[in-house]
Order: sequence, then C-alpha cells, then structure tokens
Amino acid sequence: MTARRVVAFGGGHGLSASLRALRHCAPELDLDITAVVTVGDDGGSSGRLRAERGGLPPGDLRQALVALAGDHPATRRSAGLFQHRFAAAPAAGVPQTGGTDRSPAATDGPEPDGLSGHAVGNLVLCGLMELLGDPVAALEHAGAMLGAVGRVLPMSRQPVGIEARVRGADPCAPDEVCTVRGQHQVAVTTGRVESLRLTPAAPAACAEALAAIGAADWLIFGPGSWYTSVLPHLLVPQLADAIVSSSARRLVTLNLAAEKETLGLSVADHLAALHWYLPELKVDLVLADAKAVGDPEPVERAAESLGARLVLAPVAVTDGTPRHDPAALGAALVPVLGADR
Amino acid sequence: MTARRVVAFGGGHGLSASLRALRHCAPELDLDITAVVTVGDDGGSSGRLRAERGGLPPGDLRQALVALAGDHPATRRSAGLFQHRFAAAPAAGVPQTGGTDRSPAATDGPEPDGLSGHAVGNLVLCGLMELLGDPVAALEHAGAMLGAVGRVLPMSRQPVGIEARVRGADPCAPDEVCTVRGQHQVAVTTGRVESLRLTPAAPAACAEALAAIGAADWLIFGPGSWYTSVLPHLLVPQLADAIVSSSARRLVTLNLAAEKETLGLSVADHLAALHWYLPELKVDLVLADAKAVGDPEPVERAAESLGARLVLAPVAVTDGTPRHDPAALGAALVPVLGADR
Repeated sequence: MTARRVVAFGGGHGLSASLRALRHCAPELDLDITAVVTVGDDGGSSGRLRAERGGLPPGDLRQALVALAGDHPATRRSAGLFQHRFAAAPAAGVPQTGGTDRSPAATDGPEPDGLSGHAVGNLVLCGLMELLGDPVAALEHAGAMLGAVGRVLPMSRQPVGIEARVRGADPCAPDEVCTVRGQHQVAVTTGRVESLRLTPAAPAACAEALAAIGAADWLIFGPGSWYTSVLPHLLVPQLADAIVSSSARRLVTLNLAAEKETLGLSVADHLAALHWYLPELKVDLVLADAKAVGDPEPVERAAESLGARLVLAPVAVTDGTPRHDPAALGAALVPVLGADR
Repeated sequence: MTARRVVAFGGGHGLSASLRALRHCAPELDLDITAVVTVGDDGGSSGRLRAERGGLPPGDLRQALVALAGDHPATRRSAGLFQHRFAAAPAAGVPQTGGTDRSPAATDGPEPDGLSGHAVGNLVLCGLMELLGDPVAALEHAGAMLGAVGRVLPMSRQPVGIEARVRGADPCAPDEVCTVRGQHQVAVTTGRVESLRLTPAAPAACAEALAAIGAADWLIFGPGSWYTSVLPHLLVPQLADAIVSSSARRLVTLNLAAEKETLGLSVADHLAALHWYLPELKVDLVLADAKAVGDPEPVERAAESLGARLVLAPVAVTDGTPRHDPAALGAALVPVLGADR
C-alpha cells in the first residue's frame, strides 16, 4: 500500500486539532501529512516579530509543527520548549553587577522586557528563517528538531495582510460598514464580515504547497477560525487553482461553535462561505459533530450544494467545551480517509 | 579500554578551543568529555538575560555546547542556529497591519528591538531553564538537541558576580587601587588585577560537576581569560576542594597572548596566579606554544613550582593571530592524555 497523501489547510488551534487527529489515524492508514498554514497573523508575539523583523509570522507555523512533533520524550520536550512562552521578566535572582558605580537595580516584581510574551519556538523559527534565508528550509529544519511526523509549509513565502468589510463593527452603529484591517482585528470583530480580501490581493503561493496539493489524495479544510484561518487559502489565486484542479478528494471539517468573527453565521453559512469565495470548489465530504449541528437538514443541503455528503460523528471533547477531541476526530477520519474512491 | 574521563574548566572562547581540541583526539583516546563552565558573565546578551530573567548567564554555556555539537549536518545546522545572533531589527517586509486607524509604520533602516544582540541559543537555554526549572536538566536537553559528544555543566547553579581590586584601572591614576565589579568590566580593565573574588564568596558548586571531578582521569584548565574564565573555578570552595582531592592528573593549557585583563602578566605569572588563588593545587603538565613562550626557562620554573613538567608544542593557528588551532592542540593532547601514569 502506498502512503495516502493528505494536505490539511488552516492555522492556529483548528489546524492543530486537525493535525493531531490525522496523527491518530496515521499508523492505520499510512498517512503522509502536509500542513499548509496561513501567514496573516499580526497579533501577539507573531505580530511583533513580523512587524519588527519582517519575516513570516511564526506562531501558526509553530503550532502546526508542535502538533506533528514526534512521540519520543526528547522531541516532546523540545515541543514543550517551542510552546514555552516567556512571561514578563521576573525580578533578577542576584543583584545586577557591572561597573563600579552601578547599584543593584530595584525591582518590584515582574516587568516586561524584550522577550515577554514570545514563545521560544517563535524565536527559533525567526532565527532559522534569518539564518537559512528561506521559510521552507527553516520549517524543514525545525520539523527535524521536533521529529515531526509530517511537513509544515506556509501558504506563501510572503506574509499577507487580511482585510474585511464588516457591518456593525462598532456596536453603536450596527448598520455601518467599515474596513477592518489585520488578522487579529478581523478575528476579534463582533460585527458581520461581509467580504474578505488579502493584501497583496494575489500573493505568490508557496511552490512546495502547490506541489503537495497536486500530488495529494485528500485535501482537508477546517476546523478553524473561518475568516482568518480557513478561507485565506482560497483567496490565494495559485492555491485556489491548485485546489480546484487537484485530483484529490476534498473534506471539510466543520467547527463546533461560532467564534467572535463568525457570530451570527450558521453551520450552513460556513459552507456557503466556501462557495462564495471559491465558487469552483467541489467538496466530497463534510464532517460535523451531530450535537453541534442540531437539525442536520440545512447543513445537508449546504453540503449538497458543494457536491458533498454530510457525515456526522461525535468529535468533540466530552467536557462540553467546543473543542475537537483528537482521538475522536481521528477515529471519525479513519473510515473517511481510508475509503476507496 | 575504558573511556578516559576528562573535565575541562573555563568559559567563552578559550574553553571552546579546548573542547574542540579534545574532540579531535576523542576518537583515538575514547574520551568522555565534561565541560565545567563559569557563570559570572554579565555583559552583552547573557548579561541582559541574567539581569532581566535572573537565571544563569547562558552565553558561555552555549559556546561550550556548540563546541561539542555533533558532526551530523542537522546538528551542525542546529549549532549554527544556536550561534545566530539577532541583528538590530531590519525594516519590516510589509506594512504593519492591525486596526482601522493605524497607518503603516515608517522605518528608516535597522533599529534595536527586544531581540537585538541575542544569540538564539541563549534564548533557547533561557527558555529551557525556565521550563525545566534546573540548569543541569536544561543543558542536558540542549546537548541532546545538538547531538553533543560530551556534557556541559555550570560551575554553580547560581550566577555569581566577579569583583577585582585593580591598580590603575583609571589610566590617569596609575597607582590608585579600586574595586571593579562585574565579569565584563574586569575582562576589559587595562589596570593590573591585584585580587579577585566572587560574590557570593562561596557559591554552592554544581553537584554534578563535583561528581565529574571526583571520577575524572584528567582535569584541564585553560586556555581562556585568566581572571574571568579560568581562575573563578578555583574560587568556588567546593570546586577547589574537589580539584585538590581528585586522583585525576591535571593539565594547564596556557594562553597564546595576554588579553586586556592580563596585560603586563607574563606567561609565568599566569601559572603563579593559579598557585596564588589555590596554593594546594598540584599540576602534572603545562602545555604551551613554543613561539608564544619565547624563553622557556622562567615558564619551566613556574611550572615546576606547581609540580608540573612543561610541554611545548605548536598549537596556534598559522595565520599569526593568537588563537589555538583545534587540530594542532588536539594533536598535542593525544600523547599527553594518552600516556600511562
């Protein structure tokens, strides 16, 4: 049996859940996993690194790498290191030294320094991108450091901006439409996103991602922040072309709950958004959690309009929070990805 | 043949040269290498991290780890990453995004940010020490990341201060004696160091270092900055006791040229300083470069006063700069370390 080549699209926690689920079924199905990650983040540690150093925002790439990190204790520890976030600087353990005149600095508890808030893995990725001069080479090396059981690629070698036209971004003016700029701002807007675009509008796709899509057996979209992690891939013209023309089957994994940016969007609306931004997209299967879906009928119809069949399975964690359980999602994926065409 | 256990003391470039030389003879002699590293640095990236985050200054530890990094292309690349130093931030590659009101930040070339000047390996070590809560565990994991062919230990789990009484630190008052505080200031003073001490005066030695010294076949001191990298070990009472009572043979590798801190100190004076700070220290062999020594007679006498025989060998690089050539130093060490007692 040759390996089944799976390409998972997304960013952040949603992609992480998808990759962890794929790992659960990887041994049974002999999966060859590639993650294609959005590069629009401009918030937090990633946003600061991007603004100050100009490379790709590393946070979503790091999350995907860590989700694929090997099971060996050493690589799990390295994954823990990648995720470790520097807190505000603690008071120094010893009085500051240096020079004859300086007296010990008085510190009254934590204070921010240049490292505060940065995840170590973000700094490692930033350093590797500078050192090697290419994000794909940097990700390959970081993957080796983590014993990753798959490959992580950026959707583009250039960072992108995300802009949305949002109705009611200001709660005091619910009918007004304004432009919200930046992935972070779009992700936290509570207005209704009416249209989405990238800046630049047509960034060059990562060539290795295009090749992976062309060679794939399955393309997997979601779960994840719909406007800021899932749809951006469809807005990169070369990626959209590759997705549409690939002979791979296509799976959409739906979210368990609406997020800020998708408040007011029904489950069916999520599928309609895929069609709106890439009308040529045909989907084979839509995977959703029965409880999250409620009445399946409108979702079934929305899936059918994409050419897809709806598969319902219990894929949420059991504590009631709207998070995918990697083992449950993996168990649901085995018959889906393992089925013959 | 059981492995010969070698413990090399120092910090910075000198220790790095010693470790690289030991690697050259490791296959022939089946060496088990342990580096014991000073923890007094308070300058540059290490000094900032120590002052802001309170852990051990990581720079000298990183240099020792990198010197021991494995030869596999992946571990060599990781070593390159550890050594990569973030420059002042370049202008960002794309306009800053975020919010509706913010306009792209105007940048006129590089400017310092929180990462400027930090080596990636320093940040990795700092993160590992925070994550694992123990510098020895952090160094063990970092060594595994680099495929290190030996072990790196701090001389103490607590950072120390270095203070010197210096005559003529101010060139305008050549006879005045003042206290110079901090390893960096001591290292760059052009006055004459009259005495050296640690703060605290008796830091607890790293237990694993004491065990390594007790089990060693050879203890190696130098090359390196004499006052700030070589002598500090002798000022830690528990280390001094372990060194004196160890049944290991002891080798001193002399420097090729005086540094700022040792201007005016002859080669023989370097040996006298060892005796001054640890009178019980007996040495078996002193290794020096014939050209650097010049007239060997005073050096021979200084070596004899420590109980040592002087061995002269060409160990410098051939370009005329005062740096040890790892291959030449390694070749000189083979007959020394390989000799039966």
